[in-house]
Amino acid sequence: MSKANAYRRLLDHGREAALLGATSALLAWDQETGMPKGAGPRRAEQLALLARLHHERCTDPRIGEWLQAADERDLNDEQRAVVRELRRDYERATRLPAALVEELAAAESRAQQAWAAARAASDFAAFAPHLRGMVALQQQKADCLRRPGQTRWDALADLYEPGMCAADLQELFAPLRERLVALRRRLAAGSRPDDAFRRRTVTLAHQQAFVREVVAAMGFDFDHGRIDQSAHPFCTSIGGDVRLTTRFADDNVLDALGSTMHEGGHGLYEQGLPREHFGNPLGEAVSLGIHESQSRLWENHVGRSRAFWQWCWPVAQRHLGDACAGEHADRVFALANLVEPSLIRVEADEATYDLHVMVRFELERALIDEGCTVAELPARWNALYRDYLGVEVPDDRRGVLQDVHWSCGLFGYFPTYTLGNLYAAQFAAAADRALGGTAELLARGEFGPLRDWLREHVHAHGRRYSAQELCRRATGATLSSDAFVDYLEAKLLEVYGLA
Amino acid sequence: MSKANAYRRLLDHGREAALLGATSALLAWDQETGMPKGAGPRRAEQLALLARLHHERCTDPRIGEWLQAADERDLNDEQRAVVRELRRDYERATRLPAALVEELAAAESRAQQAWAAARAASDFAAFAPHLRGMVALQQQKADCLRRPGQTRWDALADLYEPGMCAADLQELFAPLRERLVALRRRLAAGSRPDDAFRRRTVTLAHQQAFVREVVAAMGFDFDHGRIDQSAHPFCTSIGGDVRLTTRFADDNVLDALGSTMHEGGHGLYEQGLPREHFGNPLGEAVSLGIHESQSRLWENHVGRSRAFWQWCWPVAQRHLGDACAGEHADRVFALANLVEPSLIRVEADEATYDLHVMVRFELERALIDEGCTVAELPARWNALYRDYLGVEVPDDRRGVLQDVHWSCGLFGYFPTYTLGNLYAAQFAAAADRALGGTAELLARGEFGPLRDWLREHVHAHGRRYSAQELCRRATGATLSSDAFVDYLEAKLLEVYGLA
Repeated sequence: MSKANAYRRLLDHGREAALLGATSALLAWDQETGMPKGAGPRRAEQLALLARLHHERCTDPRIGEWLQAADERDLNDEQRAVVRELRRDYERATRLPAALVEELAAAESRAQQAWAAARAASDFAAFAPHLRGMVALQQQKADCLRRPGQTRWDALADLYEPGMCAADLQELFAPLRERLVALRRRLAAGSRPDDAFRRRTVTLAHQQAFVREVVAAMGFDFDHGRIDQSAHPFCTSIGGDVRLTTRFADDNVLDALGSTMHEGGHGLYEQGLPREHFGNPLGEAVSLGIHESQSRLWENHVGRSRAFWQWCWPVAQRHLGDACAGEHADRVFALANLVEPSLIRVEADEATYDLHVMVRFELERALIDEGCTVAELPARWNALYRDYLGVEVPDDRRGVLQDVHWSCGLFGYFPTYTLGNLYAAQFAAAADRALGGTAELLARGEFGPLRDWLREHVHAHGRRYSAQELCRRATGATLSSDAFVDYLEAKLLEVYGLA
Repeated sequence: MSKANAYRRLLDHGREAALLGATSALLAWDQETGMPKGAGPRRAEQLALLARLHHERCTDPRIGEWLQAADERDLNDEQRAVVRELRRDYERATRLPAALVEELAAAESRAQQAWAAARAASDFAAFAPHLRGMVALQQQKADCLRRPGQTRWDALADLYEPGMCAADLQELFAPLRERLVALRRRLAAGSRPDDAFRRRTVTLAHQQAFVREVVAAMGFDFDHGRIDQSAHPFCTSIGGDVRLTTRFADDNVLDALGSTMHEGGHGLYEQGLPREHFGNPLGEAVSLGIHESQSRLWENHVGRSRAFWQWCWPVAQRHLGDACAGEHADRVFALANLVEPSLIRVEADEATYDLHVMVRFELERALIDEGCTVAELPARWNALYRDYLGVEVPDDRRGVLQDVHWSCGLFGYFPTYTLGNLYAAQFAAAADRALGGTAELLARGEFGPLRDWLREHVHAHGRRYSAQELCRRATGATLSSDAFVDYLEAKLLEVYGLA
């Protein structure tokens, strides 16, 4: 087999796998948006079949042969990056025995149901055996995946943020935690933004029209995407056809806006991946941390900025009518930046969110690598919340049982949320320098230059560079938490009258 | 391999093929209802891949081995029916060489585009070479499929209505044509219903709520189905999750109602197929003619009956408001039964629709089996329209170019529309006898007994019996056109004041 031929076969094969993946994505999207409820069991069968077909393609032994034949010095840089990433995917996919993959899938399904019931009843004991089983399976999985010298937790985290390990994360998180805790304490002495606007009610149709106009202004391409409603907001790509969902509550239009801009940021990344590379790593997102950086940048650096609200307020007034009476842009901007240490991660503000993540980061490593027992977990959880966030956890429902992740087997995943915040701040600062200040652009609703900067420096590269290398190339520096906390302090101390 | 094992494997294998088919159905449904327009090319790739995977499963040589192993006297009646139908499917699927299947797919794609352009320009000459090529390919396809002594056209028609042939159809159609032409001539002397209501405008939202209430009253199960909007109405089943679409025009609420009840009838059939037999022939529709009978029964025997309008008129008034002012149930019932010989099949009324079908039936056989050239086609088309419908065809756009079917390779398909009308009338008459008269039930909006009769006598059997045998069992008689024309004459002569 010629080298060019092997490379071509790798691409063709990958494209077919990607088409199957895109089909699964449609099945899942439909399930969350419009599927009649009685169709659930059949849909689960469809998803399981497509997952099996996808997995068969990803572990096809011919991939190994093609990789060997194609691994040559005479490939160009792009092709070498493709081969490097395909090798990584193939090794990862083939390291897990099929029996373990099936056992994990079954255990996840059972644990998720047990978790939902246990959370509703705030009954950790009912979930504990499932969590014990899940930790044991994750340890097995990590043992299959890990390279010599790698910890189990690192092997799991590498699935979501390739190249990142606990030691690097601790180095990033230690100063971050210190400064965030200090900021939280300082803000407690400032003047709290007025939150009257948060309780104004707006009809669904008006909220929909409002968030749609904002996401269109961000540059989301409705010829290659759509926006719908679901219980939990998400963004999915059906092979370049990018679909966002938002949740709406009558009395929380800022939540609908924030979640739409968040998913819209994910959507711009997906739409910005080079279409000609569909089905190969150059057309794929590089890591969950980078993906999250795109959502957080639009949700927070844009959507929670004073400049944005100068543009957005007249738009809001046009769509929301009476709900805006007596309010003005600056007050709503301040409200969007209300800081309130709380119990629930998904409701957390920008300044305390990462403290929630760090609690999980500590506890996951304890469970996977340090012999912490499941029984000890609630007490350790509550102690960390007291320490990092200054709140008392009243029950496990609002404590250790709040997140679905561990029941789904997602260990090593949480830190990508915080990495997203750090990358976002570093990208936002670099774009600000490159564009000679973004505030004036945002105040005029000119989102194009920022979007184009992100497209050129982040989206367009797919998996060509590692996340860490992408960050260095785009921002001129390795990742740190400085840009993030500098940005937060500057904004929030002013909002709280402490600047 | 044991017999029971072989049978079990046939079912498992079939279920997997059915899951792939259901997934294709979702891809296609989404394409017609909500897919962003830029996603078209990628979607075509997904559909082609799924079609290939489906075809691979349907022609898997192991099916032949399992069929051989399972073909034994000790299967029960149901299992024997399953094996009989699976054998039929397998033989059909394996008779067509892959090269011909691919050539047909490519030719259909080209011919369909050429047809769309030719129709827009009313330029038959531009379409003629594509049609010539398509006829030649269909002849080749028929030669692969046909059994000794079978004509080519019969071999093609058998794909859509198993067991039906041109000779039987001619026997059914000859008296039907005679009586329909006579009825058309008689009605021309009667009093034409007033059509003012047809021009009343109604907003989309009100039309949607109206047709939804009607289809819910018919018993359509929204826990296992939904209703959406598309350019051309259709019904599809995503593995028991049945989805209808309707088209709406501001000024044609009766069209929206008729097309929704039509698709709703298809939907009730799909929802009535036994769920426990998903993925085997007992859970599948038996023929296109029987499928069409279910849509026509609800569209016409119910939706164009005086009794139905007694119930429906207050419902319409509630949803359509001002548009109903000055009208009453009997006038709208009469309007729903307006007979107007016309040029376009899809706009035809109940009394002349089948004459359109017969024109195509004649010409298809002439092309496929009798040496008629494509060049002769327009003149022969126009002559048949003069003869059967009494109308002059002004141009090919409104003549021989009007239907998409031949460009899609659908030869032998048209007669299933008329078979649907005949089956529908015979089922409706049988249900009427069994229920002691359906009119009073319909007038009260009690659609349950009729739906349950259809479920028990038609839906529940899947492909257990042939369409012809199903008809005999359900109605006590072989199919004829008597029930259909008797019903039409009784209704229309009264509407036209000629009774």
